[in-house]
This record gives sequence, structure tokens and C-alpha cells, in this order.
Amino acid sequence: MVDRLKEDLIETGSFGRTPLKRIERYEQLDPQKGVTRPAGTEENRKIRDYAVGRMKETGLSVKIDKVGNIFGRKEGSKTNKGSVMSGSHLDSVINGGMFDGSLGVFGAIEAVRRMDDESFDNERPLEVVVFTAEEGSAFSPILLGSSVLVDKLSVDEALNRKNTRGQTLEEVLENMGYKGDFEGSLDDVEYMVETHIEQGPVLYREKIPIGIVENISGVAWVMATILGEENHAGTTPMRMRKDALVAASDIISFVNKRANEMVKELGASTVGTVGKLNVFPNGTNIVPGKVEMGIDIRDVVQKNMEGLKNETLKAMKDIEKKYGVDISTELPPMHIPVKLSDEVVNMIDNSARQVGVMTKRMNSGAGHDSQNMAEKVKTGMIFVPSVNGISHAPLEWTNWEDIENGVKVLTQTLKNLSRIAKR
Amino acid sequence: MVDRLKEDLIETGSFGRTPLKRIERYEQLDPQKGVTRPAGTEENRKIRDYAVGRMKETGLSVKIDKVGNIFGRKEGSKTNKGSVMSGSHLDSVINGGMFDGSLGVFGAIEAVRRMDDESFDNERPLEVVVFTAEEGSAFSPILLGSSVLVDKLSVDEALNRKNTRGQTLEEVLENMGYKGDFEGSLDDVEYMVETHIEQGPVLYREKIPIGIVENISGVAWVMATILGEENHAGTTPMRMRKDALVAASDIISFVNKRANEMVKELGASTVGTVGKLNVFPNGTNIVPGKVEMGIDIRDVVQKNMEGLKNETLKAMKDIEKKYGVDISTELPPMHIPVKLSDEVVNMIDNSARQVGVMTKRMNSGAGHDSQNMAEKVKTGMIFVPSVNGISHAPLEWTNWEDIENGVKVLTQTLKNLSRIAKR
Repeated sequence: MVDRLKEDLIETGSFGRTPLKRIERYEQLDPQKGVTRPAGTEENRKIRDYAVGRMKETGLSVKIDKVGNIFGRKEGSKTNKGSVMSGSHLDSVINGGMFDGSLGVFGAIEAVRRMDDESFDNERPLEVVVFTAEEGSAFSPILLGSSVLVDKLSVDEALNRKNTRGQTLEEVLENMGYKGDFEGSLDDVEYMVETHIEQGPVLYREKIPIGIVENISGVAWVMATILGEENHAGTTPMRMRKDALVAASDIISFVNKRANEMVKELGASTVGTVGKLNVFPNGTNIVPGKVEMGIDIRDVVQKNMEGLKNETLKAMKDIEKKYGVDISTELPPMHIPVKLSDEVVNMIDNSARQVGVMTKRMNSGAGHDSQNMAEKVKTGMIFVPSVNGISHAPLEWTNWEDIENGVKVLTQTLKNLSRIAKR
Repeated sequence: MVDRLKEDLIETGSFGRTPLKRIERYEQLDPQKGVTRPAGTEENRKIRDYAVGRMKETGLSVKIDKVGNIFGRKEGSKTNKGSVMSGSHLDSVINGGMFDGSLGVFGAIEAVRRMDDESFDNERPLEVVVFTAEEGSAFSPILLGSSVLVDKLSVDEALNRKNTRGQTLEEVLENMGYKGDFEGSLDDVEYMVETHIEQGPVLYREKIPIGIVENISGVAWVMATILGEENHAGTTPMRMRKDALVAASDIISFVNKRANEMVKELGASTVGTVGKLNVFPNGTNIVPGKVEMGIDIRDVVQKNMEGLKNETLKAMKDIEKKYGVDISTELPPMHIPVKLSDEVVNMIDNSARQVGVMTKRMNSGAGHDSQNMAEKVKTGMIFVPSVNGISHAPLEWTNWEDIENGVKVLTQTLKNLSRIAKR
């Protein structure tokens, strides 16, 4: 049964396949799984076309909204209101993995196919959804398509966003043939279930096939620029230096130390990471004059997240004085932590028991369209294990038996939800 | 009198002028002084042609050796052996300054012109020298031309070195018209005096016009690669991480702290710098999986330099264990510290007194062709102040009165040396 879904995933996993030469840094592992298909690329169009083809084959009626979100609908036998939605995204990061997003879309199509196979009578409408531009690789902010659906961003604001090549979302949607004419709405949607790879190591290490997401972490970013004095590394005595990288190393140590302490002292789910760092001019024999860095702070408890962010900003003030450097910061809009629907969480749990699959309740440290959807619709998420916790990399992988468990639980959950009497 | 030299320096300072758009990071300061003319470029050819033209106008007989070193010779009145040599290099780093190297060459030509103006009788031969490829910007190792003269590198090894574009030194010399046919030799050279900008802040801050170099620092580089585990910054709990950048920050802190301690505790001239650092994959929301870093360690005392290098390598072992990362290192050949000739150092000191210019004895933290020359020839260096200690940057500058002081002391020194009776 899983062969049909496997075919979809393997076929679409070849669209935008990461070329070997670009992934030398992954040389120790099989690189034949990576994909690059940011929103609006030719590769993104190919996988959209494929998904729309499968939806139509499955008898779904397909509509595209003004920002390119795709909806494939099957009417309910008892009502055409309060639909049960399931899906995810089809864009990827650069050199990402083949299941991230795709699993949620093709898994939902497969769930509908399985219901059809057994002539299941869905009383509520079922909708398979594809959100535009979930990843921030081409357009910012992340979660673009779902942000429009929940009115965080207007249609016009979204269409005018530019990608890294300077094209607007409107242009790339027109190029792909996905500039629809109706305004997407969630008014008639009651439930949303997104299946996704965990993107972390917990399920894989603990050998549990299904994670049921209770909370999605908030995310606070701090983008910092440290200005010191560029000097000759040989001729500038230590006492005459303002080394921007030495100052940066204190910030890196601080963020790492405090996040670890918060986990130990508070039992918190805090993570703090300096993931990005650029040194200027970046010559071995030149004292660094400038460092740009990107700091990522997350927690499911907003107070913890903001606490670490504020402590980091305070530490920067001390580091400025200590080294005589100037530190300026930009604070992109925070994502606050999101609690998912107890009703859907419990339904996933019950459905997993019905089909005999073990689960674990957990939080998501990664952002998902579901965190937007939860603002308007009762939302839940089903996680499947990521091998070694790897994602956003060509080495991302999920074993086929875990894919099957995920779809089994998803199908049962959608069946159960579609039979809940309309209130 | 300085107008003649000023004309040479301003004219040649326009060859390879740094374009405005490439130096945005220097926006706060006048960018109209920077030059880019790495060895073998068209801009390097232009300044070579200009220097050869001036040498010929001055009546010097010009010869080019097999690796492109230029010699402009004036015979002595008493002997044609044991010549007094002076000069420097005409190549620059990318976005470097207009006096670095050029001052030593055009200063030496000006010194000969001044001797001619007063019909000075040089008993020994005078030789103006231009060394090929002093900077490491196009070809490695640094000090390429002088390394051949002192037999550290064979002519063939040098000619087969490739630049960053994959061209050999032989090819670029042929393209420039500077592939000579005789084998350069120092057999008949007795003294060498190189005038150079300090490239550090000491003379400028202490308002002393001339530095007399006693020692040139040794240089030890450690190129390190830290392999951790690339992971999603949101989904990977702190305890499950192997963050290569957190490990790197411990190394940066260690090198900086220990160098500062050595200066304070031993009164040493130690400097330790992490100037280069590249993070992979370098995304704000990705735990860094790999960091490459370049460490530069210098001291005029070899034991101190090697001490800090070895302590750093030892610290890396502890850091490997602490974070579960792998650190591999490459150790390019060290440059050992070099002591310059007491005879020449004293002669520069006496000459400066004769012309009434204040001096300070000091060390050079930067590498120079003189450190090679000192192995075969009695060698000394004259430093002039660098404004704010800046070099290897478009903001490098030396005030014209300091240029004049430098040439005055150089001229007197060459006059005195050229009259020392041949032993």
C-alpha cells in the first residue's frame, strides 16, 4: 500500500536533486537524497504540477488562491462546511531533504486515496492543502502562504515580497502558472492535521515511531554587527586592538552557556545557537574589524525565550565595554510559542492506538505552517522520526516503515475527525 | 626636493586604484588611496615599467633576473664589489595601500638622485632592487623573489608556483615582460637597507619619525578545521549538539587570553590572532557543523612563538574532548625570528643623528624581504610612521613629512655605507 506514496516521494525527490559537486561537505554520506527547490523555481513548479496531477487523479477538485496556496477538496456526505484539512509545503531550502514538507502533502493525498479504497464515507469535506513558500530560502518571512490565510500578511504584501533574485512573489507565481484568482479563506475549515518529519533526533534516538506535537517553540532572532578595528595581526600590539572576532567569541560562549544552564536549572526546552557568522576582512594575518552574526533562540515558554534574548543583549553591552567595540543589533519579528489544539492532539493519540502505533507527546523546535493555522483552526501535528535528527540537508532521511506509520495514523485521524458531528 | 618622490608615489598610487564599490566596508574614510596590484597583474607591470623608467633616467643600468627581480646599478668609484643595496617590492595585497613596498623602491631611487644632485662620490656600487611577489596575495609563499636570491627556493620551484588564477609565475613574468635571463646573486652585495612603512601604530602614536628595526618577528600559522555535527537549531536539544562554532569560540578566547598574558607576564612582544574564520553551512537556524580557522602567532623570541603555538594545539585537544568535535590542523612552514645587522642598525642611528631626525629602535611584527636578505647580507630597515597603524587596507597612509624624513635618513645611511672601505 505504501508503494503508491513511496513512488510519489521518490519521483518528486528527483526534482531539484542536489548535484554532487555542491555538497562536498557531505562527502562522508550518500548525497543522492538532497533537493533544492525554493519557492518559485522551475523545480518547485514541477513538484506542484505533480501534486496537482495526483489530486485530480484522486478526484479532488483543485483551486489555487491569490498567493499560490493549493487546495484539493472532496465534499463531505453530510455537510460542505467545517472541513478537515491536511497538508504541508512543497518548497525546500537550498540543499534540503526530500521529505521535508512533501511528506505532509503526499501523505494527505495518500490518506484520501486509502479512504477511497475502502469507500470510506467522510461526512465532513476533506481538503488537501499546499502552502506557498514555507521555507525562508527564497522569500521572507517564512510561512508566507499560511500567513496570508490567517491574515498576518495581506495578499498584496505577500505578492510584493521579493526573492533573493529580486523577483516578486507575484512574478514567480505567474511564471509557474500558480497565480490564482480567489482569496483563500479558513472560514469553513474546522480541523487541520499536518504530518511532518521531526527534523530533530528525539524520536529516532528513543525509537518511537510517532510524535504528537503539543507546542511549537517560539523563535527570537538577534542579528548583531560588531565593529572593531581592522589591523595588521603582526604589527598591532595586543593592548592596542579592538578585535571584533574576540568580542564575538564571548557572545557565542555566552549564548551556549546560558541556554545549557536554563535547560539544567529550569528543565526548560531552551535552545540558543549562533548559526551564522561572517568575519571581515577574513585574512589569517588581519585583526578582524567587523563580524556579523545571527543568533537563534527558542523555547515553548515565551518568558524563557525572551529571557535569554534579553540576557544576550545585556551581555553584549558588557562585551562592548570590555573590548572597546560597537555592537548594533536588529531584532526581526519574534514568533511566539504556539499551543496546538487539545482536541486534535487527543484525537491523534486515540487514532494511533486504534491502528496500534506507539506515540510520544513532544514539542516542535522547528517552525511549521501549523503554528499559523492554529490561530484560526483546531490544529495538530504528527511527527515521524528523522534519521540522526538531520534535516535541511541532503542527508535528511526517514525510513519507509516510519512513513507508513505516519500515514496510517494520519488516515485514521482524518477519518475520525471527518465523522465528528458538526456543532 | 621631496616633490620628485611625491610625484612618483602619487603617480604610481593611481595604478590599480581600488574602485569605490569594492570598499564599502571603509565607507567612513577616504577610499581614494587604496591600490590592488598583486604580482603579475597588468597594474603590477605598469608600476614595474614606471620604476625601470625612473632608474634609467637616473643613469642606473637595469637587469632583470630569472624570477623577475629588478636590479638598477650604479658602479662605485673605488670598487665594483661589495655593493650597497636598497629597495623593496612593488606588488600589493588586494585593496592594499599605496606606500607599502613602493616607498622602499622609489625612496631608494630618490636617494641615488640626491647623491647625484650633489655629485656624491659613492666608492662602492649602489644597487636599487625590486623584489618579485613579496605579498602572498597572488603567489605563495610570501617573499618569493627574495627567497630565490637567498637560495631558500630554487628558480624552477619559484617559476612553477601558481597564482590564484592557476597561472605560473613564469607565465605572468613572460606576460609582463619581466622574465629575465640571468640568475640573481647576492655574492657581491655587502649591505642592504630597506625603507618601509611601519604597518603598525607605535611610531604614529608615540610621534617618533623614524623606527630602526632590530628584529623581525617570526610567524607561526595554525590552520584548523573543526568538525562537529550540523543540525537544526530549533529541534536539536542542547545536550545532543556538537557545535563546531562553540568549540571555535573557545579557541579564539584561548589564543587571545594567552597572548595577552604573555605580554603582561613576560613583557614579551607576542601577538596571537584568529583572523580568518569560515562557518558551514552558515545559516542562523543551523547548528554549525564545520568551522575553518586561520591562527597567526608571532614573536621576536622563537621560544615564545613556539610556546604559544604548542599551547594552542594542546588546548585544541581539551576542546575536542569537551565538545565531542574533531579538530585537524595544518602547520604551514614557520618563519623564525630574524635579527638584523648591528653594523647597519648603528649606521642608520648615526646617519639619523647626522641629519637631525629622532629615532626609536623597535621590532617588526610584519614580514619583509629584509628577513631573507639578512641571511646573506648585512641588513637594516628604516620604518616611517603609518597613520593610525593601518596597512594592507585602502586607508594606509604616511604623511609627506615622514616620507621626507625617511628618505633623508636613507640617503645619509647609503652615503655612509658606500664609503666604508672594502675589507
